[in-house]
Order: sequence, then structure tokens, then C-alpha cells
Amino acid sequence: MPNPSLLEVFASPGDLAFVIEHTSEEFTSVCPKTGHPDFGEVTLRYCPKPAKAGGVCVELKSLKLYLQQFRNDGIFYENVTNSILDDLVAALAPRELTLVAAFTPRGGISTRVVARHHASR
Amino acid sequence: MPNPSLLEVFASPGDLAFVIEHTSEEFTSVCPKTGHPDFGEVTLRYCPKPAKAGGVCVELKSLKLYLQQFRNDGIFYENVTNSILDDLVAALAPRELTLVAAFTPRGGISTRVVARHHASR
Amino acid sequence: MPNPSLLEVFASPGDLAFVIEHTSEEFTSVCPKTGHPDFGEVTLRYCPKPAKAGGVCVELKSLKLYLQQFRNDGIFYENVTNSILDDLVAALAPRELTLVAAFTPRGGISTRVVARHHASR
Amino acid sequence: MPNPSLLEVFASPGDLAFVIEHTSEEFTSVCPKTGHPDFGEVTLRYCPKPAKAGGVCVELKSLKLYLQQFRNDGIFYENVTNSILDDLVAALAPRELTLVAAFTPRGGISTRVVARHHASR
Amino acid sequence: MPNPSLLEVFASPGDLAFVIEHTSEEFTSVCPKTGHPDFGEVTLRYCPKPAKAGGVCVELKSLKLYLQQFRNDGIFYENVTNSILDDLVAALAPRELTLVAAFTPRGGISTRVVARHHASR
Amino acid sequence: MPNPSLLEVFASPGDLAFVIEHTSEEFTSVCPKTGHPDFGEVTLRYCPKPAKAGGVCVELKSLKLYLQQFRNDGIFYENVTNSILDDLVAALAPRELTLVAAFTPRGGISTRVVARHHASR
Amino acid sequence: MPNPSLLEVFASPGDLAFVIEHTSEEFTSVCPKTGHPDFGEVTLRYCPKPAKAGGVCVELKSLKLYLQQFRNDGIFYENVTNSILDDLVAALAPRELTLVAAFTPRGGISTRVVARHHASR
Amino acid sequence: MPNPSLLEVFASPGDLAFVIEHTSEEFTSVCPKTGHPDFGEVTLRYCPKPAKAGGVCVELKSLKLYLQQFRNDGIFYENVTNSILDDLVAALAPRELTLVAAFTPRGGISTRVVARHHASR
Amino acid sequence: MPNPSLLEVFASPGDLAFVIEHTSEEFTSVCPKTGHPDFGEVTLRYCPKPAKAGGVCVELKSLKLYLQQFRNDGIFYENVTNSILDDLVAALAPRELTLVAAFTPRGGISTRVVARHHASR
Amino acid sequence: MPNPSLLEVFASPGDLAFVIEHTSEEFTSVCPKTGHPDFGEVTLRYCPKPAKAGGVCVELKSLKLYLQQFRNDGIFYENVTNSILDDLVAALAPRELTLVAAFTPRGGISTRVVARHHASR
Repeated sequence: MPNPSLLEVFASPGDLAFVIEHTSEEFTSVCPKTGHPDFGEVTLRYCPKPAKAGGVCVELKSLKLYLQQFRNDGIFYENVTNSILDDLVAALAPRELTLVAAFTPRGGISTRVVARHHASR
Repeated sequence: MPNPSLLEVFASPGDLAFVIEHTSEEFTSVCPKTGHPDFGEVTLRYCPKPAKAGGVCVELKSLKLYLQQFRNDGIFYENVTNSILDDLVAALAPRELTLVAAFTPRGGISTRVVARHHASR
Repeated sequence: MPNPSLLEVFASPGDLAFVIEHTSEEFTSVCPKTGHPDFGEVTLRYCPKPAKAGGVCVELKSLKLYLQQFRNDGIFYENVTNSILDDLVAALAPRELTLVAAFTPRGGISTRVVARHHASR
Repeated sequence: MPNPSLLEVFASPGDLAFVIEHTSEEFTSVCPKTGHPDFGEVTLRYCPKPAKAGGVCVELKSLKLYLQQFRNDGIFYENVTNSILDDLVAALAPRELTLVAAFTPRGGISTRVVARHHASR
Repeated sequence: MPNPSLLEVFASPGDLAFVIEHTSEEFTSVCPKTGHPDFGEVTLRYCPKPAKAGGVCVELKSLKLYLQQFRNDGIFYENVTNSILDDLVAALAPRELTLVAAFTPRGGISTRVVARHHASR
Repeated sequence: MPNPSLLEVFASPGDLAFVIEHTSEEFTSVCPKTGHPDFGEVTLRYCPKPAKAGGVCVELKSLKLYLQQFRNDGIFYENVTNSILDDLVAALAPRELTLVAAFTPRGGISTRVVARHHASR
Repeated sequence: MPNPSLLEVFASPGDLAFVIEHTSEEFTSVCPKTGHPDFGEVTLRYCPKPAKAGGVCVELKSLKLYLQQFRNDGIFYENVTNSILDDLVAALAPRELTLVAAFTPRGGISTRVVARHHASR
Repeated sequence: MPNPSLLEVFASPGDLAFVIEHTSEEFTSVCPKTGHPDFGEVTLRYCPKPAKAGGVCVELKSLKLYLQQFRNDGIFYENVTNSILDDLVAALAPRELTLVAAFTPRGGISTRVVARHHASR
Repeated sequence: MPNPSLLEVFASPGDLAFVIEHTSEEFTSVCPKTGHPDFGEVTLRYCPKPAKAGGVCVELKSLKLYLQQFRNDGIFYENVTNSILDDLVAALAPRELTLVAAFTPRGGISTRVVARHHASR
Repeated sequence: MPNPSLLEVFASPGDLAFVIEHTSEEFTSVCPKTGHPDFGEVTLRYCPKPAKAGGVCVELKSLKLYLQQFRNDGIFYENVTNSILDDLVAALAPRELTLVAAFTPRGGISTRVVARHHASR
């Protein structure tokens, strides 16, 4: 399993609520059933806690390295999404965070999975 | 009529609400009136119940095989949509589920049918 | 004036609320002022009443024939839209119905008219 | 300044609320600072009052002639939008009216101004 | 750091609430970590206070000159966005203001940051 | 049959060879087999003879009126194209002329017909 | 195997060389290896012989019925293309004819096959 | 008539043949028949003579000012194109030069005129 | 290095020259310098020898498996292209073959490499 | 002036002629007249000499660093293009090389410059 400790953070630059969105158009993992590679686009959208409450942002290069770890990992679409969500929520403790993973067609069917986290829940 | 028992499911990977969307760009059935083939795109969007409540996801290949059964079936657009919705609701018992079917033009008119199911209704 | 009796209906396939959208990309009428042809795209979006309440759907070919009747009719954009809305509401008695007519540019100005009907109003 | 008396109206065809949208892709005025021409797209979207309340629609050709008057007028983006809004509200006395003006880039910056009027305000 | 005193304003042309949006497709700054240039698109969307309450609009050319100052500035994405927001809020004292900065991909990941200010908060 | 005498011409503005292309996106005729309307886009591209050799150009409004005559004419795609070509060659005596007619799908099949004339043949 | 005798022809409307192109966006056949359906777009482009040399055109509806025969036929991409080419060349004896078949992705790979016939070869 | 003396030139930066293309998306003139404004896009593509043979390039701002002169000029499409070509050939004495003018639709018909000059002719 | 013996072939279905094009939108390899993954699209276009001369086609699934071997291979863009070209020419002995590899941006620069083989050379 | 010694090369991987194309979508320089930044896209397309004749390829990162040097350089469009062409021809001694620079609009006019080098000339 990918190692979430690769994720690095830095202090959020302000107390005002704002939204950060990172989109990796080059996500790839492996289908655990067929062993063939899957390809997709992963979007992370989150709102950090205020700076004075210890809010943090994810460092871009560490996010890239974290996502690259799925390259040879056998994992289903639904689990990819929930797994990345869990790791990022643990690392960022954000006000809220959404993870969208959109995969290219297999057998004529494309798939998109969306998971959300709210601090207040 | 297509056989819903082809649909296979697996346990949802978490208790958090999330959304899964599968789009088949290669749906085809037959017009019961003219006998000519119809072509369209079918999108299934649903939110499984929590894992602890027995929530399940549809297995992608079984969904493909289920949808292929309409290939030589004579059925109207409105019925295609409601029929797939019913079969998937029975198989997945989801929190909510939306079925969108968009058909290519016939006589210069294209058609789109949208049906929704909510567990609470 | 176009004859609404060309519109044929069939019983809605279910009691669940669902939405049907037909788009004719080949609508044409005649400007009553200049006598020149107008061209546009007409979209009908409606939700039939439940089957058990006598809900009906419009038959696709009859819709095509109905719309073709405007071909040599001199009528303003605003009236086209309201006239089609009235005829379809009378024929379908839907829960709700929206008519959108979008016309190609004349004198560098394109026009779009939207009218809505709700059963409860 | 453009002459609003060029705007002609006709009685709205019904009592039901509906929306009319006209888009002129060929709007041009002159920058009062540099004297160079500005180019943009102006969209008028409004809902006339009911016919029985004296609701009126703007006649398409008169709208074109009215907008052409800005051609050699030196006026800022923000003023163009508010000025057209005022003239149309005076001529149409609509339930509500939105004016959107989108201008092509100057110095690598494109601009869009949106103004709204509600009868109830 | 960019000098906010370059920003010039002029009196808003009316008391009605309206929205102004400027999009610079040619924003560039420098990554403080690698020293390599970053490229993006910055969108400013705001609603000035009413004229009678002293509402002002930003002058377009001064906005261009202000944004050009980031050209050789080493600054992170998240800080760019919050920094421009702060300077514009100080200069315009608007009812509300949104700043969107969208950067081209680095390491296969594109980034978009959105910050908002409301006068009433 | 459409009357080619509607086509008006004016003297070409020069002796240099140049190319003029008119595209009507709003062509419509009637299928002689089914009686249903056909819709398409007709492009005329031609090179007039030199002014000193009596070269002429087709006047735009007369071209519009000529093409509108096909509106209620029952005619096959292949004949539409050859018929317009013949009328325009007779009216313009051009160095060369190409006629392209592209029709919207019928039964899932779209059609495009291209005919060419060269003065030297 | 599809029956080429479904193809009907009619006399070409002229002696001048011209080009006819029919595109079916709704072609489907079956993979002989996996039994799964394939989907694609088939384009036929040809130049009939002159009318006086007995040139003929393919009738549009008969072409549709001919292509529909592949629906449940197990056949490879390369053979589909060559087989349709052979049948059309036999039916039309054209000056020249090109057949292009473009198939949707399987395993992340899309395929396009192009075959040409020239009367003079 | 527009004054060609506004066109300024500068010495071409080399002896190697190269191509320069300027596209003005904001061209406007006036129809001499109706008095209504026309809108279009003008593209100038040319190859200067070698520097050692006195080759020159057109200065960008002077080109803009030259083209702006057509703003209130009543002139036909075919003449616009030939007139600009003549002025630029006189100012630049290029190896070759192409002028393309594409005008927005009038009466549903868009127009494109292409004129070319070769030094060797 | 990828093993070309994975490539399977089958006899070409005819003697007529025709063209086959396979596009893999999901190609990935690894940069030998940085160790980071590269992503791109690989297109193979070839014309097999005639059937009677022993012409063969590449089997689609074997092509997919062959290309997947580059997944964890450290190799430069220019070498990827030439290496795939060599393996396919050896396996297919085609009349001619073109290999196009287009890679996503790195440092804001995207790359495309094209290599061609002709039997006659 | 940018320093061409930043350009690094490596030996071409084969003797067969092939084409390499690098596109930088993030080129920026400064207008020598106004001091304002210019933005554009630079495409380099070249064919290296055969490996046995000492053919070389440009290393991607060194190309990026070379192009970044124009960032604060005051230089005209026509000179940018010829200057980059000269430096690359000197560094690569290619069979042939094309340089395309496309700049965003200034005063409503966009510009594209194309320069070519052939070894045999």
C-alpha cells in the first residue's frame, strides 16, 4: 500500500477560508482482477483550517510522489478514491476535502468516483 | 428481457457516503416499432449504503454484460431507462441512484431520459 | 396554425417521477415580418404524471410531424415557444414541462426563449 | 449618447412567465481613454410582465439599431452595461432583466460585466 | 513584493449592485523553491459598493501593471492568491470579491486556488 | 424547380485571381421519397474571371433568395448539388467553382456531396 | 455474412465527376475472438462513373440496411473494412472508392482502417 | 478610403525566407448597400524579401491603425480584401502575400474571401 | 528491454494495399534521468504487404501487451519511438510503417516524435 | 541576449530519418517598444542527421533553460523566431529544422512567425 508519510505539509497562508484544487492528469494503478493497468485523472479539492487553528496545505511535489506510489498497486477504483481521501484527511485535517477520480473506459464503460469529507461530521 | 441476475456486487469499501458513476458510451437496443437499432449512452450514478449497513457496489464487468443484453431487445427509450433503474435498485439497494440514457437523433430529434431513486422514498 | 391533434401519446411506463427530453435540431418557421425562413433548435423537457394517475408520454414520430407543421408558418419567436408549450401541455397534462427554443442569428443577434408549465400552478 | 427611443416593443404573447434572451455577438464601442475600438458580446435576458398587466417584448430589429448606436461612442465597459440596462428597463418595465457584456482582451485582460434589475426592488 | 499603490480606482457608475470580472490569461510568477517560472490565469470578480456609499471600480490598465509586478517574484500559488486578494480588498473596499488563480501543470499536476472576501464578514 | 434568374451578379473588383466562399448553414429541401424535410449546409467556393475578361461575382442577397427556393422542393442530395452547380456556372462563368453540400444524419448516416467545375474543361 | 444484394443503386445525375460521402456513426459488429460487441464509424467516399457510362449511386436507405447486417456478425476490424469495400465496388463499379472504419478503444487502443479502390487499377 | 500611408515598416531581420502571419479578430466595416456594420476576421500572411534585398516587415501597431480606418467605410467584402492586399503589397513589396477575410453570417450566409500576390508574377 | 516476441500476427485479409492505424492513449514509461513516469499517446500506422506476398497484421491484444512492457522501463522519448518502430518492422515486414509518440508536458514543454519505415528503402 | 551555450545535445539514437517536435506553451519575452511582456507558444520541429554522420538531439531540460532566458529580454516577434532558429541550427546541425512562434493578441491582433532551415541550402 502507498505510504502516506510521503505527504508533506506547510502552514496555510491565512485565516480566511479558501479553496485549493490539484488535478493530476497522469494517475495510473493496476486492476487487481486482470493485472492490466488502469489510467485516470485524480482531483483533490480542499479548504484548509485557518492559520491560527494550525491549518496546513499539502506540498505539491510530495503529493506527486505520493500519487506515483499507486503505479504498480493492484486496487479497485472505489478503493483508490477512499484510500487517497483517508490519507489526505489524516495529513491535512482540513475543514473539508473532496476527492474525484475519473478513469478511462474499460469495455466501453468509463468510471468516476467522488468522495467527500467534512470536519464537522 | 435482460436478465438482472448477471449483475454482481461487492461490499462497499467504507461507511462514508460517496458517489460512483459508470458511463457506457456504447449502448444499443432495437426500436420495437421499426425494428431498426437505436444507439445511445447510458450513465449510472449511485451512492451505496454504508459498509456497516451492508452497502454494495456493482462489479464493472458484470454491468457491461448486463447492458449488452439489450442489444437485440425491442424496447422504447422511456422503458429502457426505467427497466435498468429497477434492476439496479433491486441489485444494489443504494441510498440513491440516477439513470440517464441519451439516444442519438432519429428524424432529427435526439432524446434523453432521466430517472431517479431515493432509498428514503 | 399547426394542428395539435397530430400529437400522439402512450401510457407512461411507471409511477416514479422521471424526466424526458426531446431536442429537435432542425426546427424552421417563417418570419411574419420579412417572409424569410427562421432556423432553430427546439427542446422539450417534461415529467409525466404517474402511470396510475393516467400519465402519458408523447410519441416521438408524432412530435416530429407536429413540429414540421411550423415549416411554412409565419410566426414570431416568442409566439412559437408559447404556442408549442400550450399544445404539449394540453396533450400531455404533465407534472411539469419546459420548452426552450434557440434561434440562429439574424442581424448578428441570436435569440433563445424559455417557457415553463407546472401542474400545481 | 445612444437614443433609447429607437427601441420598439410589442405586447407579450401570454400571461405565463417566460424568459427571452437576445445575444449580440457584434457589439462595438470606443474606449474614451485611448480612442481605440472595443469589441464584445452583449446578452440581454428578461422576463416580461404578464400580457394582462401590459407586459411587452422588445422588437428584435429595433434592438439591433439601438445597440449599433454605441459604435462610435466613447464609453467605459462598466458604463456600457449600466446604460443599456437602464434604457431597456425604461422601455420594457420587465419583471426582471439581466444584462451581460463580455469584452475581448486588452493588454491580455478580458472583462465581463453583469447587471441585474428586479421589478420588486 | 508587488506594490499595491499602482492600483487606481474610479467611482462606480451606479447604485445598483452589479458584478465586474477581469481575467488575465497571462499571469506569471517564479517558484520560490526551484526558481523556475510559473504560468497561470488570474480572475478577479467583484461587486463594488453603491456609488452613493463611495463604491469604486479598479481601472483596467492599473490592474495590468499591478499584476505584471509578480513576473520576477518568488511566491507560492497559495500566497499569490491571498496576496492579490488582500491588495484588491484594500484598494476597492468592495461588497464582495473573489480571486481565482489557475496554474499550468507541474509534474503532471495543475493547481487552482480560490479565495473570497465578503464585506459583511 | 428553383429559378436561376434570381441570381444577380456584379463586376469582379480586379484582374488578379482570388477566391470567394459563401456558406449557407441553413439550407433545407424535401426528400422526394418520404416527403420529410432535409437539412444541410451548402458551401459555394469560386474564382471569378478577371475583371477585364468580364468576370463577375454573385450578389449575396440574391444567392440567399435563390437557395431559399429549394425549401419546398422534392430533390435528392446528389441532384441538389449538381443542380446548384449548373445554375451558378451558367450565371457566373467562373474560372473554377466548387459546390459542397453536407446534410444532417438520416437513419444514423450523414451525407456530403462535392462537385467541381473548371473553365478549362 | 452480410448480403450485398440489399444494396440498391440509381443512375448518377450527371457526367461531371463528383464525390459522394456517407458516414454511419452507428456501426457495430461482434469480435470473433471474445464475442463482445465492437462499435465504430464507417465512412464511404466514392466518385461514380459518368451517367453516360452507366454510372450509379448507392441508395441511402439500402446502404443503412446493408450495414445493419454486420450487427451480430463475428468479424475482425481489418476484414470488416475490406469486406464492405468489395461489396460496394461490386455494386457501384465506381471510378474510385475509399472505405474508412474507425473503432472505439479496446484495452485503451483505438483502431482505424482505410482501404481504397481505383477503377484504373 | 483608408489611408495606406499609416502603414509603417522595418527592415526584415534576416536573409532566410520566413513567414509572418497577423490575424485581426476585430475587423469591422459598413455594408454600402444597407448601411449596417459588417464584422469579420482579417488574416495577413506574407514572406518578406531578404534583408540584403531591402526586405521589410509591417510594424504591428501601424497595421492596427490602418485596419481601424475601415470602421466607418462603406465597402463590399470582395473589395475590402483586394483593397487591403493592394495597400500591403505596395508598402511591403513582399516575395508573396496572402490576405484572408472571413465575415460573420448575414441572412444565414457567412463569407470568406482569399486573395494572393506573388512577386514573380 | 521490452520483449518483441509478445507481438502476434495474422495473415492480411487481401492483396489490395490498405492502411491500419492503432492508437494507444495510455502509454507510459519512466524517465531514465529523473526516475519519474512519462505519459503519452502512441500511434502505429502501417500498410501490410499483399496477402499473396505473405503480408501480416498485428493482433490487437498482443500489441497492447507489448506496449505495456514499457511501463517500468527507463527510456528517452526518442529511443521509445525508434525502439517500437524496429520491433514492429521486424514482426510485420510491412510495405511501410509510421510510429508517432506524443508525450505530455514536462517543464511546460510537450514532445512528439515521428519515425517512418519504407520497405523499398 | 540569451546564451546558446546552455543548449545540450546527445547522440541521435539511429540512422533512419525521424522527426522530433518540442512545444513550449509558456514562452514569454518583453516588447522592446512598450516594455510590456509578450506571451506565446514556441514549437521546434527538426530532423537530426543520421547517428553515423554525428547526428545529435537537443536535451529537453537544456532547451527549457535556454528558452527561459528570453523572459526579461526586449525583442521583436520576428527577431525572437530567427534568433532561436539560428542558435538551434548552430547547436544541432540538423538535416532540417522549423521554428514556429505564435503570440497572443495585442490590440486585437495575434501573430505567428515561421522560419525554416534545410541543411542542403
